[in-house]
Amino acid sequence: MQKKERYNVAVAGATGAVGREMVSILEERNFPIEKLRLLASSRSVGKTIPFRGEEIPVAELTENSFDGIDIALFSAGGDLSRIFSPAAVKSGAVVVDNSSAYRMDPEVPLVVPEVNASALACHKGIIANPNCSTIQMVVALKPIHDVARIKRIVVSTYQAVSGTGKKAMDELLDQTRALLGFQEVRKKVYPHQIAFNCLPHIDVFFENGYSREELKMVNETRKILEDDGIAVTATTVRVPVFRCHSEAVNIETEKKITADFARELLAYAEGVCVLDHPAENVYPLAVDATGKDETFVGRIREDESIENGLNLWVVADNLRKGAALNTIQIAECLVRDAL
Amino acid sequence: MQKKERYNVAVAGATGAVGREMVSILEERNFPIEKLRLLASSRSVGKTIPFRGEEIPVAELTENSFDGIDIALFSAGGDLSRIFSPAAVKSGAVVVDNSSAYRMDPEVPLVVPEVNASALACHKGIIANPNCSTIQMVVALKPIHDVARIKRIVVSTYQAVSGTGKKAMDELLDQTRALLGFQEVRKKVYPHQIAFNCLPHIDVFFENGYSREELKMVNETRKILEDDGIAVTATTVRVPVFRCHSEAVNIETEKKITADFARELLAYAEGVCVLDHPAENVYPLAVDATGKDETFVGRIREDESIENGLNLWVVADNLRKGAALNTIQIAECLVRDAL
Repeated sequence: MQKKERYNVAVAGATGAVGREMVSILEERNFPIEKLRLLASSRSVGKTIPFRGEEIPVAELTENSFDGIDIALFSAGGDLSRIFSPAAVKSGAVVVDNSSAYRMDPEVPLVVPEVNASALACHKGIIANPNCSTIQMVVALKPIHDVARIKRIVVSTYQAVSGTGKKAMDELLDQTRALLGFQEVRKKVYPHQIAFNCLPHIDVFFENGYSREELKMVNETRKILEDDGIAVTATTVRVPVFRCHSEAVNIETEKKITADFARELLAYAEGVCVLDHPAENVYPLAVDATGKDETFVGRIREDESIENGLNLWVVADNLRKGAALNTIQIAECLVRDAL
Repeated sequence: MQKKERYNVAVAGATGAVGREMVSILEERNFPIEKLRLLASSRSVGKTIPFRGEEIPVAELTENSFDGIDIALFSAGGDLSRIFSPAAVKSGAVVVDNSSAYRMDPEVPLVVPEVNASALACHKGIIANPNCSTIQMVVALKPIHDVARIKRIVVSTYQAVSGTGKKAMDELLDQTRALLGFQEVRKKVYPHQIAFNCLPHIDVFFENGYSREELKMVNETRKILEDDGIAVTATTVRVPVFRCHSEAVNIETEKKITADFARELLAYAEGVCVLDHPAENVYPLAVDATGKDETFVGRIREDESIENGLNLWVVADNLRKGAALNTIQIAECLVRDAL
């Protein structure tokens, strides 16, 4: 991408939960924008979204949406990414795609800037933003992997409904209200009641019993950490929380790493905030991480059930670091290094 | 205990969430009761609890409460168990104690009837009921341990607030109502907001960073499965669910066990109900397990991150199988075998 003072940026899927977060983060971080083009389905045409004191109208996402665009941020779902990303690239834009469409494509870098920004150098027009639950885990694990090499990860997630989107947030709210009022619970987004319940079901299931979300955590972790030798197993669970994913992460390392050392190491790590004084009730919490940029890590304990084991509790805002923020951090790297 | 037609039974802590559940389960299972004595603190004297169509008055728990009592079921907290259990034993009663006071005492059997009923034979007056999160896990794991020997368990829990008691259920309700009404959230029972949040904090923390709940899962599992060689590591988390604990359980076995075989094996296991058709949205759920006796197991998957690994999702009613029901099942064994 050619170095410029300011860039023409498009956000595809601008009216969704992540799209709106992208627009607000672009403003917040003062991204060098010449012109911002907001794109969504024809249903959303007529809507406006505030940006730098102006109301920017939403235009329909078409193949011709990307004329003159330098950077296209996609958060419109895998199907639309597959259709429109190539058109954007053809128009000369670099695409940062938040869907799962291109993540495992060997030609496409899958990037968390704190972890593998160097992978951006060989992009061919499309860069993939990883899955939310993977991003926060690799941010917390990369510094440990670098010093002690992680051999195996066992992760259980506690994922917020905003990961599914705005309709799921409404469903949690509506069901909660209905239950408090002794009224019937209606299910539209999830197959079962999510209010006051835990659903061990995120995305579709495969023949082997794993959900797509669980396999994303396996495959994306290996690709981002650039180590196919890391063994990962995951159980991904939706919990009645609006925003921020929590994760219980158990790791086995090749070299011994103490909890104290891991805590110090993570305190120096970019993008990480250690909150770990359990005796004073200090540990990462979904409600505290909301709207924050950092990945919060706490409950760091040596796992004595194996020789070199460690347990961690990792929390981050799934709409920010898990999606919109990471996408924009990738765009910042592209701009900084003229990639 | 002498064999009788009917027994005099006392419930200590009868007005608590678990105590009330005990009374209702005694009635439901038609426990051979001659006389039921309900005991609680002086504050509760004057209250009555319904049993077999009568309103039974609550009396104050004192050292003299156990005259003529054959079986004393305790759910009054560890401190009161330590004070009054010996008095009950001295009066000739057999105590089944739901607190943690005696669980790790080598003289006291720690029993889940489906798993280690045989341990009851050598009781000396007190039998301990295990921790709720441990009970449901060992019910699910015992059949697998018997055929394939479990070497290591990594468990993450999703625990309901009723495990803390009635006040915590009220706090979840009050906080939820406050948040829906844009009012201030008040915290009394938990140090942080529990509504729409996950707290990686159950019971107190030790120097090594683990909570007491986590170490209970380590130590009680070994005692109940009568195998000190089982390595266990746990992360225990409170979630905004009223009733029933869910658990993501990862195990490593000595011998290979396929998911299909584990599913069949568990289908035959006493106290277990397998719900495992994820593609049809069938898996155990807290809201479905409420009021049920079984431990529900699903999401059974081979864990390919190690040679002999398996993942399971285990759900049970923490007030029933996790507490009151298991206590009464122990009492049923005592009565059946005149132990």
